[in-house]
Amino acid sequence: MAEPALDDLIDALRRLPGVGLKSAQRMAFHLLQHDRDSARRLAQALTQAVARMRHCARCHTFTEGEVCATCLDPQRDAQQLCVVETPADQAALERSGSYKGLYFVLMGRLSPLDGVGVGDIGVAPLLERAGDGVVHEVILATGFGAEGEATAHALGEALRSRGLTVTRLARGVPVGSELEFVDLGTLAHALADRR
Amino acid sequence: MAEPALDDLIDALRRLPGVGLKSAQRMAFHLLQHDRDSARRLAQALTQAVARMRHCARCHTFTEGEVCATCLDPQRDAQQLCVVETPADQAALERSGSYKGLYFVLMGRLSPLDGVGVGDIGVAPLLERAGDGVVHEVILATGFGAEGEATAHALGEALRSRGLTVTRLARGVPVGSELEFVDLGTLAHALADRR
Repeated sequence: MAEPALDDLIDALRRLPGVGLKSAQRMAFHLLQHDRDSARRLAQALTQAVARMRHCARCHTFTEGEVCATCLDPQRDAQQLCVVETPADQAALERSGSYKGLYFVLMGRLSPLDGVGVGDIGVAPLLERAGDGVVHEVILATGFGAEGEATAHALGEALRSRGLTVTRLARGVPVGSELEFVDLGTLAHALADRR
Repeated sequence: MAEPALDDLIDALRRLPGVGLKSAQRMAFHLLQHDRDSARRLAQALTQAVARMRHCARCHTFTEGEVCATCLDPQRDAQQLCVVETPADQAALERSGSYKGLYFVLMGRLSPLDGVGVGDIGVAPLLERAGDGVVHEVILATGFGAEGEATAHALGEALRSRGLTVTRLARGVPVGSELEFVDLGTLAHALADRR
């Protein structure tokens, strides 16, 4: 169509994760045809977030301050440090309401295929944070796919070599699941870790 | 997490069509963590597109000028006018390379459930455009789902009452399809319209 402003918008939307050409076209047409207010609001939110959001000096999550609200909360148990991949994972654990310790957010995980090695996922900052003399237990809560498991393994080795107690979230049958639909690996773990 | 700049960004991304809370979070974290350049570029593209893009005075598609490049092209056959729902549909027909006439882009279709009635899909501008004395044939190329068919029906009635020749894209078996996997309605149309 040779309309540079439209082509630029579609190209920029395509760079969002999970958005292909057809989705980007649909988004651009929708915004321009029906919702120019949302387009202006998104432009402003992007500019503000890029300008303001940085990483918490203690847990590495996104925050506008120097240290995030969770790390500053005196009610939290500073002896427990839970390592998660993303702020979304941290939010999921918070919603469970069953953890009162602190967090360390890796902002990624080992992914050799994408060129993400041990040096790229913040191992050194984690070792420094966990070695503050207050943390007793590091709970590894990375995902249970291949990359999350590899990340947990690498971090566990490094943390144990510093003398820290390292635990991993339990594997087992999800609440509400029928056994016949649970995969074999999960059943094997559930049997081995029965209590 | 009570980080207003991050929450605003996630809220704004959620307003994009097809984007829910989890996708919006993933997009926001990706942009802030790995691709702040893309975030800045998207903000600029949104601002530029909203400021520059308007509707072609003749075919109603998005354009930066008064009239779009297709409508201004003297090589196109001004006696044929093809009515499509979106610029993406127009682009698909252009890629087929088998149409040399002009277009009219509805920018929508009848959708009673979403409150989109006949008055909302540009019937009056279409009748004015098709009644310029040059257009001989109006080809209805709206979709073949229920809403596209209803749109074609309503537009066809209005255009025929003005004495215009109205045609519809052929229904039939898609190229490359095996008959056993084609639905019954399509087979019935393919039989009735055999040639």
